[in-house]
Amino acid sequence: MSFKKESVDIHKKYRGKIEIKPKFNINSRKKLAIAYTPGVAEVSKKIAKNKKEVDKYTNRANQIAIISDGTAVLGLGDVGPEAGLPVMEGKSAIFKSFAGVDAVPLCIYSKDVDEIVRFCKNIQPNFAGINLEDIAAPRCFEILERLESELNIPVFHDDQDGTAIVALAALINALKVVEKDKENIKVVINGAGAAGISIAKLLNDFNVGNIVLLDSKGSITKNRSDLTSPKQEIAKLLGFEGKSQNLEDSLKQADVFLGVSKGNLLKKDMIKKMNSKPIIFAMANPDPEILPKEARKAGAAVVGTGRSDFDNQINNALVFPGIFRGLLDSKKSEIDSKMKIKASFAIANLIKKPNKNRILPSVTNKEVVKVVSEAVKN
Amino acid sequence: MSFKKESVDIHKKYRGKIEIKPKFNINSRKKLAIAYTPGVAEVSKKIAKNKKEVDKYTNRANQIAIISDGTAVLGLGDVGPEAGLPVMEGKSAIFKSFAGVDAVPLCIYSKDVDEIVRFCKNIQPNFAGINLEDIAAPRCFEILERLESELNIPVFHDDQDGTAIVALAALINALKVVEKDKENIKVVINGAGAAGISIAKLLNDFNVGNIVLLDSKGSITKNRSDLTSPKQEIAKLLGFEGKSQNLEDSLKQADVFLGVSKGNLLKKDMIKKMNSKPIIFAMANPDPEILPKEARKAGAAVVGTGRSDFDNQINNALVFPGIFRGLLDSKKSEIDSKMKIKASFAIANLIKKPNKNRILPSVTNKEVVKVVSEAVKN
Repeated sequence: MSFKKESVDIHKKYRGKIEIKPKFNINSRKKLAIAYTPGVAEVSKKIAKNKKEVDKYTNRANQIAIISDGTAVLGLGDVGPEAGLPVMEGKSAIFKSFAGVDAVPLCIYSKDVDEIVRFCKNIQPNFAGINLEDIAAPRCFEILERLESELNIPVFHDDQDGTAIVALAALINALKVVEKDKENIKVVINGAGAAGISIAKLLNDFNVGNIVLLDSKGSITKNRSDLTSPKQEIAKLLGFEGKSQNLEDSLKQADVFLGVSKGNLLKKDMIKKMNSKPIIFAMANPDPEILPKEARKAGAAVVGTGRSDFDNQINNALVFPGIFRGLLDSKKSEIDSKMKIKASFAIANLIKKPNKNRILPSVTNKEVVKVVSEAVKN
Repeated sequence: MSFKKESVDIHKKYRGKIEIKPKFNINSRKKLAIAYTPGVAEVSKKIAKNKKEVDKYTNRANQIAIISDGTAVLGLGDVGPEAGLPVMEGKSAIFKSFAGVDAVPLCIYSKDVDEIVRFCKNIQPNFAGINLEDIAAPRCFEILERLESELNIPVFHDDQDGTAIVALAALINALKVVEKDKENIKVVINGAGAAGISIAKLLNDFNVGNIVLLDSKGSITKNRSDLTSPKQEIAKLLGFEGKSQNLEDSLKQADVFLGVSKGNLLKKDMIKKMNSKPIIFAMANPDPEILPKEARKAGAAVVGTGRSDFDNQINNALVFPGIFRGLLDSKKSEIDSKMKIKASFAIANLIKKPNKNRILPSVTNKEVVKVVSEAVKN
C-alpha cells in the first residue's frame, strides 16, 4: 500500500495539513486591546528591556523552523522548495500531534550555503530551534556545521541525526535478537550521503567493532582520489584504510547490512555470503534495497525497512518529535553524540523483549516522545 | 484604560497568542502514511511537475508572512525584532480570528534593505502574500517598492497602506457629518513617516483639494534642503511649493488635522484657527496629538483617535484582514490606489448615517472583512 490516491485526495480536500490558530479567540474590543494595541505595547517594552523575556510572553520557546531548500526531498531528489512544502507540512503536523511542538515550514529558493546560514541567523528571534530537512549532501554537512557554531539555538538535521538515532535504536535491539555484541560485529553501510555518513559516525561513537561505508563507487577508503570533502573526512575520522571494495565483497563476513541508498540493489546471493544470522536494514524509500520476504528467504535473521506496511519500520518519526520536545523543555542548545546514543537506547528500551518481528516501538506509541525527550533532558 | 496589566498577564499565561495546528490529527499509522511518507511523495511529485499546484495541496494559498525588522514597533521605535514579536503574533491572531488568514510572524535581525528583500524572495514558496510591519522610514519605502517590483505575490505595508485606507474611510464619513466636499478642503497631515506620506498620496489620488504635509521641522516643500528622498519625492509628486510653515501656521484655514506624529502636540489654540467645523484625527499611539475632550472644547466637530477607549477609533484592524482575504481569494498580486479607495468606501459605507460620535464601524463588526475583501476582489 503506497496510499498514493488517499494522500492526494486528503491534501486536496484540506488544502494542506497545518494552519495557524489563535490561542484565544479575539472577538471583543477588550480582547483586541489586550492581544494587540494598546495593551501589547507593555509586553514589547518588557522584551525590549530584556530580550530573553521573549520566551515568556510569546510562542517562541515552543516554536521551531523546518528549513529546506528542496534539493533532496524524500527519494525524489532536487524537486524544488514548492514540492518540498507538503513534506514539511507533514513534518509540522507530526511535531504538533506527537510532541506539542509548533513547527513552521520554510522552504526557500536559495541553495547557497552562505545565504541559507544568513537566513537561519535572521529568523532566530522567532524560533527556539531549527530542524534542517531534505537538503542535499554535501552542502547539508557544511550548513549544519556552520549553524551549530554560529547560532545560539539547537540545530538538528533530521536526515543526518534523526536517521542515525533511529538506525542505532534498531541495531541495539536487533543485536539482542541475534545475540551478538557490538564490539565484535562488522556493519556495512551502503550509501554515503547525509544519512550514511551520520550513521557511520554514530556507530563509531557507539564503539561498533568494524564499520564499512560505501558510496556508489565502492567502499570509502583514504586511498580513493574521487571523494568529496565530507567523505574524505569520514575516511580519516574512522580510519578507513586499504583497497576499495564493491558491495558484494564488503558484505563477506559482515553481520549487518544498513542501506540508505537505492531500491533493489541488495541481492539474495550477497546476503548468503554474510555471517550467520545477518541483520538487514533496507531503509531506502519508497523501495527498499531488498524486500523483507526476499531477505528472509536468503537467511536474514532480522529485517527492517523505512516502510509502514512491513514489520520493523525504522522511521525518523520515532526520533525528531521527542528530540525537540526535550531540547525546548531543557533549553539545551547543542546535540552531542552522547545525547543521540541515549535517545537510541530510550527508543530501544521500550521493547522489553525484542524479537525478529518487533525491534522498535510503533511510531504512534505515545511513550516514545516521553522517553526520547527525557533522554535529551538528562 | 491601557490594559497594561491584563495584557502582560494574558501573554504570560498563554505564552503568546498563536500556535500551529494540524488540520487533522495524526493518530494512526495509516494517517501518518497519508500525511507523511510514503503517501506525500505523490503530492510532491505533482508539485514538482507544476509548481503552481502547491496552492492546491498545501496551505500556501491561505498563508502570508508578517515581516518586521523591529525598527518601528508601535510608538516604541527601534526596540528590536524580539520585542516586535508579540505585536506580530497579535496581528496574526487578528488575521485568523477576523478573516481566516494564516499569518506567520517573522521578525528578523537584518535591517539591510538588500537582505530583507532577498529574505522575502526566498520565502515565496511558502506564502501567497507578505504583510510588512513596523519597519522604519525611509527604508520601508524602498523595501516596499522593490518587493512590489521583484516579487510575484502581493506585498502590503500596513503602516503605509493600512493606515492610509482607514484614515480615508474616516475622512469620507467625517466630511458627510460636517457637510464639506473633498475638493474644497485643506487637510494638514502632521508626521511624514511611513503613514503620513502614504496618507498624503492616497488623499491626493482621492482628489482632496489642498494637502499640507509636515515633519517635525515644518511643512514639506520643494524648497527645503533637508529632506530625505521619500520626502523629496512626495514634495515633487504633490507639488508642495513655497515657504515651509510650522504646524500652527499650516492649520490656518484648514478643515482637517490628521496626526500621525506624537502625543500632545496639538494645542487648543491651533484648532481655534482652523476653519469652522474642524475635523481632528489625532492618531498617535498610545497618546494622541490631543485628547478628544480637549479637541471638542476647542470646537472640533468630529474627533477620531487610534484608541479603543474613545469614540471613532481609526484602527488598521478594520483594513488588513479584509485586504488579504480579498487578495488571497482573487489571487491578485498588486494593490493599487483604486483598490485602496474602494476599500475605504467599503468601510465608510457600513455606517448608514454617520454622526460625530460614529464615523467608522467597530473593529469587531464581522461585515467589515466581507465588504473590504469584496472591494479588493472586484
